[in-house]
Amino acid sequence: MQPETRRYTATQLVTFTKSLFEAAGFDEEKARTTAEILVEADLMGHTTHGLALAPEYLDELEAGAMSRTGAPVVVEDRGATLVWDGLRLPGVWLTARALALACHRARQFGICAVAIRNSHHIACLAAYLLRATEQGLMAIIASSDPSVASVAPFGGTRPVFTPNPLAAGIPTAGDPILIDTSASITTNGLSARLREEGRRYPGLWAVDAQGTPTDDPNVLVADPPGTILPAGGMDHGHKGYALALLVEALTQGLGGFGRAEQPSQWGASVFVQVLDPAAFAGLAAFTAETEWIASACRNSAPLPGVRAVRLPGQAALARRRAALAEGVQLYPGILAGLEKWAAKFGIPLPAGR
Amino acid sequence: MQPETRRYTATQLVTFTKSLFEAAGFDEEKARTTAEILVEADLMGHTTHGLALAPEYLDELEAGAMSRTGAPVVVEDRGATLVWDGLRLPGVWLTARALALACHRARQFGICAVAIRNSHHIACLAAYLLRATEQGLMAIIASSDPSVASVAPFGGTRPVFTPNPLAAGIPTAGDPILIDTSASITTNGLSARLREEGRRYPGLWAVDAQGTPTDDPNVLVADPPGTILPAGGMDHGHKGYALALLVEALTQGLGGFGRAEQPSQWGASVFVQVLDPAAFAGLAAFTAETEWIASACRNSAPLPGVRAVRLPGQAALARRRAALAEGVQLYPGILAGLEKWAAKFGIPLPAGR
Repeated sequence: MQPETRRYTATQLVTFTKSLFEAAGFDEEKARTTAEILVEADLMGHTTHGLALAPEYLDELEAGAMSRTGAPVVVEDRGATLVWDGLRLPGVWLTARALALACHRARQFGICAVAIRNSHHIACLAAYLLRATEQGLMAIIASSDPSVASVAPFGGTRPVFTPNPLAAGIPTAGDPILIDTSASITTNGLSARLREEGRRYPGLWAVDAQGTPTDDPNVLVADPPGTILPAGGMDHGHKGYALALLVEALTQGLGGFGRAEQPSQWGASVFVQVLDPAAFAGLAAFTAETEWIASACRNSAPLPGVRAVRLPGQAALARRRAALAEGVQLYPGILAGLEKWAAKFGIPLPAGR
Repeated sequence: MQPETRRYTATQLVTFTKSLFEAAGFDEEKARTTAEILVEADLMGHTTHGLALAPEYLDELEAGAMSRTGAPVVVEDRGATLVWDGLRLPGVWLTARALALACHRARQFGICAVAIRNSHHIACLAAYLLRATEQGLMAIIASSDPSVASVAPFGGTRPVFTPNPLAAGIPTAGDPILIDTSASITTNGLSARLREEGRRYPGLWAVDAQGTPTDDPNVLVADPPGTILPAGGMDHGHKGYALALLVEALTQGLGGFGRAEQPSQWGASVFVQVLDPAAFAGLAAFTAETEWIASACRNSAPLPGVRAVRLPGQAALARRRAALAEGVQLYPGILAGLEKWAAKFGIPLPAGR
């Protein structure tokens, strides 16, 4: 595929994407928030989980598999803890809204956790985190999709989990630490991209249905399918397996809906927690510690062949700064995937330069 | 070292260990709780983090490096969030007490988190979890020691973290899931035991000071020292690195004390969080999900050479049941390490059978 050479401003991309979602039936707030978070992912360079998802979301809307309007049902609200039924509303909007509420409540209670059942897909977890860290709050977001299984437990060959991402935004005295990790070595999104591009994993990150380790992402769509390995792989995959179970409990357990109901539609169970350092030992004491460890990491003498140790989020924030200053070059094929929708709704493609 | 053939009842071991700690100056409650949790670790088979630690704790008490009596200072209490200064009191007792309080407060607020600064060492995190899960509560415990560095960030060669354990107790309809994982591939305790026994890691779990991967645990005590690798190792150690930073923020950041103060004494910063499923979607809905995923894991067809997929805690709970029914065989050398203290305090060694 040809590399994209045009550059777009974040505003151009948000305006364009928002218009598409509004044309597809979203109200203004849902369209804006979804566009903002997807574009944020592209600014950060998380290109499998940004605008690349917009055509899939528009397909879901057209098929009636994603709700267009309305608000989540509050199943339970105890102040510092809440459960929402997301009614298959856009997961990006639900998650951003839950995070905003959890930030507000954490200022009141010191801590707040929201579990969301029946959300639609929530895209890139890292893209939400600045909304908390810029207020001096620490956010934790986890997600799973009870309709999908692509990751086996350690020692097993039959997938039972999704990659089960876990993100955390941690304020420091400077740039925040933006963690976006998962219980498995890699994601479904990256696996799909490698398959499309005829590429392989950089390591033995999967096993086929017989349990033979492989770098071939096609085993996931074979019949019978193989599985992505939990983090730690064949050597110490009990580490990723443990994290996968923790995320299942936080998202589906606390939300009270998940694999036990065997849902068949693409969706998400979501867990959002915010901690207010001011309610603990104070924000200054918090950032004194996190800044110290961040600095110690950056200054750890690098391995042979490594230029310097980086913090989680450091490269993403650098890409984001550059993209805001100079415009963003989209990953090849992303805008092409939206051309059909732009034509259908009569919305001009962003001009770029 | 000769294998131990004698078997001891849990009660014999708790009574003996409690007597040692009382003779060393602990009040009754601190001695009892510390003895109970250390013995619990041995019952579960976590033999590096059970009674094997008692001689080290007694050394610390004799040296005045662990406090004997008193209570933690409540630095902050907002109901659902607390910070304690542990005043270098026994970490096992502090952690058990924080967990009990967090369970109580979680029933009130749905969630409760306690950060403890200036704790002493907290031993085996898995050994606390039944105290929450038996009440139908979900517990998360994390710990770090700001005076010790043995794990480098991903891409680095200079250690900045401890292994930074993270534990979670998750109720199901049957046995709870007991997660006790860490941000690094292995622990300092296991590394020390392998060195003592002239053994090696089962994989390339460390690098020397030049960054060469190795299975030799002696690199940790070389000059200059090497480092334990974060979970994921050379291939995808950014996963363990992310978890290490998250645990540093939860423990030292929220506690407001840590590496920035460059403490020199063996100790711990601790984070304890309890979630009450009843305040979310209900305990029955929670365990319906966790039981479903537990069953799916057990039933995942195993890899070649694996008898069956196990859940975290499954083997430990089986060992615990057997030890309670038939008595526990201590790991070689553990009782020998306590003989000096038993003689000093005039306390008879447990008889066993």
